[in-house]
Parts: sequence; structure tokens; C-alpha cells
Amino acid sequence: MERLKKNILELGSIGKTLQGGVDRATGTKKDKDARDLIVSLMKEAELDVQIDKIGNIFGRREGNSNKKVVMVGSHIDSVPNGGVFDGSLGVLMSLEAVRVIEEECFKNERPIEVVVFSDEEGHFHPHLGSKVLAGILSIDVAGKMLDNRGISVESYLADIGYKGCIERSIEEVESYIEPHVEQGPVLYDGQIPLGIVRNVVGLSWLNLVIQGEENHAGATPMNMRKDALVSASEIALFVHRRARQLAQEYDSSFVGTAGRISVFPNAINVIPGKVKIGIDVRSVVHGNIERFKEEICEKISEVEQEYGVKIETEEIGLVKPVAFSNYIINRIKKECAKLKIAYKIMNSGGGHDAQEIAQKTKAGMMFLPSVNGVSHSPKERTEWKDIELGTKVLTQTLKHLSE
Amino acid sequence: MERLKKNILELGSIGKTLQGGVDRATGTKKDKDARDLIVSLMKEAELDVQIDKIGNIFGRREGNSNKKVVMVGSHIDSVPNGGVFDGSLGVLMSLEAVRVIEEECFKNERPIEVVVFSDEEGHFHPHLGSKVLAGILSIDVAGKMLDNRGISVESYLADIGYKGCIERSIEEVESYIEPHVEQGPVLYDGQIPLGIVRNVVGLSWLNLVIQGEENHAGATPMNMRKDALVSASEIALFVHRRARQLAQEYDSSFVGTAGRISVFPNAINVIPGKVKIGIDVRSVVHGNIERFKEEICEKISEVEQEYGVKIETEEIGLVKPVAFSNYIINRIKKECAKLKIAYKIMNSGGGHDAQEIAQKTKAGMMFLPSVNGVSHSPKERTEWKDIELGTKVLTQTLKHLSE
Repeated sequence: MERLKKNILELGSIGKTLQGGVDRATGTKKDKDARDLIVSLMKEAELDVQIDKIGNIFGRREGNSNKKVVMVGSHIDSVPNGGVFDGSLGVLMSLEAVRVIEEECFKNERPIEVVVFSDEEGHFHPHLGSKVLAGILSIDVAGKMLDNRGISVESYLADIGYKGCIERSIEEVESYIEPHVEQGPVLYDGQIPLGIVRNVVGLSWLNLVIQGEENHAGATPMNMRKDALVSASEIALFVHRRARQLAQEYDSSFVGTAGRISVFPNAINVIPGKVKIGIDVRSVVHGNIERFKEEICEKISEVEQEYGVKIETEEIGLVKPVAFSNYIINRIKKECAKLKIAYKIMNSGGGHDAQEIAQKTKAGMMFLPSVNGVSHSPKERTEWKDIELGTKVLTQTLKHLSE
Repeated sequence: MERLKKNILELGSIGKTLQGGVDRATGTKKDKDARDLIVSLMKEAELDVQIDKIGNIFGRREGNSNKKVVMVGSHIDSVPNGGVFDGSLGVLMSLEAVRVIEEECFKNERPIEVVVFSDEEGHFHPHLGSKVLAGILSIDVAGKMLDNRGISVESYLADIGYKGCIERSIEEVESYIEPHVEQGPVLYDGQIPLGIVRNVVGLSWLNLVIQGEENHAGATPMNMRKDALVSASEIALFVHRRARQLAQEYDSSFVGTAGRISVFPNAINVIPGKVKIGIDVRSVVHGNIERFKEEICEKISEVEQEYGVKIETEEIGLVKPVAFSNYIINRIKKECAKLKIAYKIMNSGGGHDAQEIAQKTKAGMMFLPSVNGVSHSPKERTEWKDIELGTKVLTQTLKHLSE
């Protein structure tokens, strides 16, 4: 535990912000520094380090080399102004589990590889490294992707010395397990030290453009207005209330959020003539997302009628839900039972590398409690006692998966 | 009419934008050009031109110089990306009325002055020139006001050659009449060529800061959120619905608008943690504004309860309603009746120079229809036929006021 804690603080000091979080997006110098630290820790642990063409880092503990690999890991890039634990904790817990396995002179039949996936947070593209490993994105397409400065993945990786030569195939992977902070309040509020993830929610992102009529807020009587912000408010409220109702009644994974809004001209004394609003809908049941989109369309028609506005809708994102392997879920459950550690079978509301791997082979996730449910923030934190329990469960699970 | 039309197009060409409007805010070179044009037109009409210390322009047709003056006019500055008619039309109609009076060799007992007030739109300060004339703002305070570039009124006026030497007193003014575009849809929709303004609404501007909890939109269940944008939507909807109800039930001048909103962090996949919203409330009855503010406070408490947010409210603007002189209202009514021109007694939802003058002496306003109710926009327009009728009424009214 002392060694893991030291590593967490060490990695957390790279790209550290004044608020105590980290700024370590892919594409920054700090990403290279973090990679260098992980590579040196892997080498210290006598793992065989390889880098693939998309910059994924693999630290291998050999087993029977004819056997498929058990992978374990996460990512070390952060969102801008992110926290110390998101991704990084999973990588360092994985490394610690393998170190314990080594110290215990455990004989793993299957090779074990600790993996660090490139650019999970999507500076270039979300889940970049895991999509390439899973064969969902070809290296040719992935390498040419540009960030908002016009820099390509390839040239960035070459620049920091992490454009490797090898190409890995998902065919070589027997199973993948990813420990990660929950990024939500469920475990922390329920005082449960560990979550075993059954599904990752699917999502739909909608952009609505509401066209009303810009007019003088003083000189336009209430019954002669086409107010785009009032229309947007009706929709934002509908999304929240109806999602709350659905979550209560029959799909506890269901969430609906209006998180982004722009108003034109956005002056206190002008009736808003145009509003853009972004809506995020998620559920583990794809059909529930589809039905909710239909309900939003009905609400839109009502609002167009009532307020005399025109509303255009575009779906800018659609990801289907992913179910994790029962084999891995059951394996983690058994280890928790043996260690007498309470757990909760739950869903993931956020996206993770594991959902890409799960589309091609057995994959699963362990969640650790996020204090106050906070993530993507300098205030992000997971308690040391929970990290200790989680690492024990991970170590035992890894042993059994690689036996 | 040909002459007036020519002047309107000529003034409209100064600061003309690609969209066909004008950009002629106080503080720009175009403001000087527009002033130069008006001064030359005044001189052509053989008016005696004077500039006061705040840059107000007066063009005087002499009468009995012992008598107090009848003033008529408006402003020629525009909002950024404004229209051709707002303010300018009133000044040029006033000038035309005086030219007709001259041509008809009408003997006015009272001197008549066409006035152009400085900076009605508030580049430095709203209603700057009229507030100084009315004695509401002293020239010492007014001259030192700064714009957002840090330039003072005094130095700007000196720079363009419009810092005059004289100081006028409101004591010299018998009455003031201001023709202006309505800036709302009431006359145009009702196909009424002329409005006689009874009151200018008072207003309150409120800034609300809503503090919720920023969280992951996927990982935070619906019943564990403190969503600042949903809270803001509740308030924006309340303001709209309740104002509509009040307007319908007992105060047709009542309006309530949420026109400005900022959301933090404003990302599609993050529950908004903080929202600022600006609310504009107006009525001709000050008490109705005060009661509405109390109702908003009650609503705020409800929203704080329901969504677990904290809301701070600040009043950033408060203007009391102003009633115009019955003497002038009746005078315009009589001229309309004689000329068989339909009119509507109405309120002004926007602020005007006349409301400053009205606090010290007899003042009134005539409204002309704004096509589709549009103003502060390049699409702002008033039909020539309405301008012709309005100018006839104005000319006759001026004659009677100055008799």
C-alpha cells in the first residue's frame, strides 16, 4: 500500500495544477512525462515494455507464451483541469497487483500485461488506443486524426517518442479487466467499497436549434412573443423531469441532461431570438433511449405550437450500451466473497476503454468510490482504504484469470 | 415628403452596414459625421445652431425671446448594428416640421428648438444628454463618465468638435415633444398609423446566480443532482408565464423576460454547476414590479428547496415609470382628430429621452409603427406613408404648442 500510494502521488505530481488536480491531456508535454514514469515503473517491476503504433504501452509478465494474454489497466491522460485518480488509479493498481503476484512467486499460466491506453479522454478521439487495439478503428485512420490545433496523432506520438512499431491484435487478448473510479456518487453515498460493472450505458447526444424572434423586451407585449429561451427552458425541464420519472419507474440507469446552452443575442433587455441547446441521454437499454428521443420530438412539437418557434434537432452522438462478460463479473464476485468485501453490481454512466475491448473479447470493470461522487475535477478523490481493498480484489482476480 | 425622405436616406447612409442598418454608436467617427449633417441641415433651414457642454445640438427658430421654448427632437446615435429609423426619424421629422412652419410663414410666439440629445443609447451612459438638460445629471459628473475603452465623454466630445460652451437649463423649456418609432409590434399589427404615449414603463433588472453541483452527466443518478440549469429553466418559465398572466388579467403593460444566461461549465456531458441569468421586468405601475419581484423571491425559495441549489439575487437596475403630460397628450389627440388620423393611446416599453425631460416639465411622445415590430436591427423600418401622416400631426401640434 505504501508503494502504491507513493506511485499515485508521484504520477499526480506530473501536470499538477494550483487547485491540486492535474492538467495532463494527451497532446501535452505532461503526457510524455507521465508515460516515462509508467515505463520506468514497469521496468523496475521487471515487466517487458512494448509500445504499439497508437502509443498504447504494454508491460508484460510472461507466462505460457502460447496462451492468450490477460490484460489489466486503464489510461493516464486527463481531461483539462481533471483529477489525480481518473484512469491513473486503474493503471497503478494494475501495476501493483502484478508486483504482488511477482513477490508471491505466483506462476501465471497466461501472460499478464498491464496496459496504458492512449487518449481515453479524446483530445484527438475518445477511447483512441482501446479502439485501435479492439480493431474498431484502423491504425491508418486513427494515426491521421487531428486535434483542434491541426496536429495529427502520428506526429504527436513521434514527437514525444511514443510512436511504437508493433501492432497488437485483439485475437491475442483472452480477457481485459479495468479498475477505475466510479465518477458518480452511488458507492460513496452507499458506503460500499467496490462496484462490479455489469453494463456501460449507451448514449445519444442531441443538438437543438430553436429559432424564435429577437425583439425588444420592453416594447413587445407578452402575447406577441416568440421567445427561444422560454422554449429551451420548457425542453430542459421536460428532459429532467421525464428522465427522473423513467429512472424512478423502470430504468434506474436512465439519465437525461441539458448541459450546454447558447443564447442569441444574450442581452438582458432583448427577447432571445435563437437558442442552441445540447442534450445528453443515457441508459443501459438502447430501446429506452430511442423511446425517449421520440418523447422529446413530441415535446418539441408542443413547444413549437405554444411559442411559435421552429426547432431543428440533430443527433451528434450515438453509442450503444455494452454488457460486460458474466465470466469476469462472477470471478470478481467470488473474490469479493472470499475476501469478505461488500460490493454492488452496478452500471457505468460514463464511457471507458473497457467498453471497446468488450465488443471483441471478455472484459469487465471494477469501480472504486469517488468521494462525494466528484470526478473530472481537482476535487476528485478516492480513499486509501478503498484503494487497498480494491487492489486486493484485483490481485486475486488476476491470479484466477491467468491461472 | 420628398425632402424628408432624402434626409432620412442621407443620414441612414452614415455608418451604413452591409445588412442595411447603421453602426453609429456615440464614440465613433460616424457619430461626428451624422452630427455634421444635422448641423448643416439646421443651418440650411436658417435655424440658429448651438451646442451645449454635453454635446446636445439645438437648432432654434426664434419667437418671442422672453418666452420659454418648445423643444422637439430625439437622438441620432444608434446601438451597434442598429437600424436607420430609431431616433434619427424623430430628429428629421422635427426638422421637417419646422421647415414647413417656416414655409407657411407661421408666426410662433414661443421659440421652437429642434434638439439632438447626446448618447441616448448609452455608449457612455443611457439618456446622457437629456439627463443633463433635465438637471438629473450634473455636467461635471456626466463629462467625466468613461466608456469601456476608458475614454471620457469630455475628451470624446472635444475630439469630434462637439464640446460646446453653453449650459442650458430645463427652466427655459416650456414643453418637449419626441416623435419616435414604436420599437414594438402593437401599432403595425393593429394597422394604426400613430401612437400617443401616456406612460413610459418602469423597470427592474435582476441578476440571479444559481449555485448547483457540477457533476458527470452519465454517472450521476437523476435523484442525486443539483442542476443549476434546470433551476434556471424553472425561473425563466415562471417569469414568462406569470408575466403573461398578469398582462392578461390586469396590467397590459406588464412584461417579464429572461434574456441573458451563462452556464458553467457549459458542456453537453456535464451537469451545470452554476448559472447566471438576467431578468427584465417592466410595467407602468411601479407597485406591480415590486410585487412581481416578491413573487420571484418566493419562486426562488421553491426552486432552492426542490433542486438543492442556492440562488443569489441582485437588482442591477431600477427605473420608476414616468407619466407624460396630459396637456400634450390632449393636444396631439386634437390634431389627429382634426386631420382624421386614427391613433392609439399607449405605453412605451422602451426608455426614451422624453422620460427624463418629463420629470421636470411638460413632455410627450408620438409613436410611429415599426414594420413587424422590429427595432435595434438592420431590418428596422417605418413606412413612408406613416412618416408622412406623423409629420403632419407633429407640425400641427408644434404650431399649437408654440402659439
